[in-house]
Amino acid sequence: MTKFWSETTKRTEPYVPGEQLNDPNIIKLNTNENPYGPSSQVKEAIQDELTRKLHLYPAPDADKLRDEIGSYYNVTKDHIFVGNGSDEVLAFSFMAFFEPHAQIRFPAITYSFYPVYAKLFNIPYEQVPLNRDFTIPAEDFFGAEGGIVIANPNAPTGLYLNVEAVEEIVINNPEYVVIIDEAYIDFAPASAAPLVKQYPNLLIVQTLSKSRSLAGLRVGFALGDPGLIEALVRIKDSFNSYTIDRLAIAGAAAAIKDRDHFRETTQTIIRTREWLISEMKKRGFHVLPSQANFIFVSHYKHSAKSLYQRLKQQGFLTRHFQKPAIDHYLRITIGTDEQMESFLKALDSITPLAAVQD
Amino acid sequence: MTKFWSETTKRTEPYVPGEQLNDPNIIKLNTNENPYGPSSQVKEAIQDELTRKLHLYPAPDADKLRDEIGSYYNVTKDHIFVGNGSDEVLAFSFMAFFEPHAQIRFPAITYSFYPVYAKLFNIPYEQVPLNRDFTIPAEDFFGAEGGIVIANPNAPTGLYLNVEAVEEIVINNPEYVVIIDEAYIDFAPASAAPLVKQYPNLLIVQTLSKSRSLAGLRVGFALGDPGLIEALVRIKDSFNSYTIDRLAIAGAAAAIKDRDHFRETTQTIIRTREWLISEMKKRGFHVLPSQANFIFVSHYKHSAKSLYQRLKQQGFLTRHFQKPAIDHYLRITIGTDEQMESFLKALDSITPLAAVQD
Repeated sequence: MTKFWSETTKRTEPYVPGEQLNDPNIIKLNTNENPYGPSSQVKEAIQDELTRKLHLYPAPDADKLRDEIGSYYNVTKDHIFVGNGSDEVLAFSFMAFFEPHAQIRFPAITYSFYPVYAKLFNIPYEQVPLNRDFTIPAEDFFGAEGGIVIANPNAPTGLYLNVEAVEEIVINNPEYVVIIDEAYIDFAPASAAPLVKQYPNLLIVQTLSKSRSLAGLRVGFALGDPGLIEALVRIKDSFNSYTIDRLAIAGAAAAIKDRDHFRETTQTIIRTREWLISEMKKRGFHVLPSQANFIFVSHYKHSAKSLYQRLKQQGFLTRHFQKPAIDHYLRITIGTDEQMESFLKALDSITPLAAVQD
Repeated sequence: MTKFWSETTKRTEPYVPGEQLNDPNIIKLNTNENPYGPSSQVKEAIQDELTRKLHLYPAPDADKLRDEIGSYYNVTKDHIFVGNGSDEVLAFSFMAFFEPHAQIRFPAITYSFYPVYAKLFNIPYEQVPLNRDFTIPAEDFFGAEGGIVIANPNAPTGLYLNVEAVEEIVINNPEYVVIIDEAYIDFAPASAAPLVKQYPNLLIVQTLSKSRSLAGLRVGFALGDPGLIEALVRIKDSFNSYTIDRLAIAGAAAAIKDRDHFRETTQTIIRTREWLISEMKKRGFHVLPSQANFIFVSHYKHSAKSLYQRLKQQGFLTRHFQKPAIDHYLRITIGTDEQMESFLKALDSITPLAAVQD
């Protein structure tokens, strides 16, 4: 720390993303990336854009991309905001809708960026305890005093709250914005997106990093009433006029457009997940009923930390959170069938040893 | 406005970027883009990166790009922060170093995003009047109470403050951060970047949008003491872990690396600028001695607003600011020689008519 740091800087507690190792032999099952590449149309669109004017600024409102998302969700583009990854969209949302004097609520176990944003923007927050089975107690989110953020499916549990429960939360907070962070929704039964046309206080946030295989391109978006979208645009235009570059706009629009590739890869991941869940259960693991592209598992005999370490030694990177309520769990991203088969082999080779630890 | 807007949203006064028209026949001389494309190595690097893993997150610290910038400026990478355009770097800097209770200073005529940031983050500011000739009175920036931001060369005047004057300002503000926004520095005599090794309170901000022809790719950076860089990293990691995508990291690193292309195009633009200045003077224009890739001109007989409109009708987009002290000036980006020749022809065809206006 130096004397030049602002109070804001001093109070930050930065988010720590999952490890990004350079070792090409490691199989990354730690940051919920998609094991399948993006649609071939993404590369074609980027190639095409590369022949154009990289020396000119992008369209500041990324119309082309917003049109494509609007067409997918059957809303006009004034219901859509796009940003440099859903993390940026979330950061702008905290600024646009929450206040330093009004306590917001989010689940006690959830995406760990929420408390980081709250600290950055000096917004007080209440961490609502989950039920014993890690499900979200919807009614505990009724009547908030400053706003709500819920990841659905939740991370790192993978558990899904159905649309009716989301709607109940929205209805029971008419004065505040309810942000539903649907980063993993395409691996779950249904998005609450259609509700944005009915409720002026519902903001849905999504990303192209997971189901659209574009973590490397940094694109996320929000769906909401035009009144909410206008607030996000004001914040963006007071921060950075052009947040998405030309290549990202072109690639992201192509990814949304290719629905076949999206459907096929998403369904394959869901199939692999269900198979992996049954395999893990056979091995005595407790597996939460995930509706995301990862599973959250624990074993009564094996410490999650030592499993994490031994798997890493064998070339499989998973994610272990050293936090009280979940430190006996391991989060494992769903890879290809082949990757998960070799993962199971590695697991089988180490579990007898891991059993003695802790 | 809806009842869901935060106080922050309500007090924003968003920046309005220059028009981005879709008409391919229009010659854009309004947002200081580079008329020459980026280095061919940029496209090659992006093509190469496209064959890799777009489905995986980028390196969160963009090491490869920071190494390249460090090598160019002869500093280690802990002196370098990179962001999604220099606007994002500036926004993070306002958060990292300025306070809602300490008034910052910037010139009364300068990049109009500075007051926008200040309003967004609720930072009080003083707009220091320029000298009559639009030069910056360096001594009026001594002993500030909260920090300083100076664009050098300044926008939209194009006037340059020499390194000695910058150093005096830095020395005379030992308690606060002095941000020198060098967006246009590569068209001017010298950067103050070497001073960052000496002064822990100096932050230099630059962009790849102008001299590196990459406005479409969104990359900017800051050079400073590691203590300042650490603060920016903390803010970034509390906001958005991955602000620069894989293609932008690869393309930007290649652009910094190709020094020949950079030198040639920059020198050509400077040559065109000097020629254009002399041509404009021949036509009775008052032209500020610009050290940037644009000129700022006025004519005692022709209204700038009507010139702007008539030039637009003829297919030349320039920038006119409707602000009291500068509304009789027009800002014109330096294009290719060919573009500027046809610009002069258009100008010659309309000035007799424009003379009657206003």
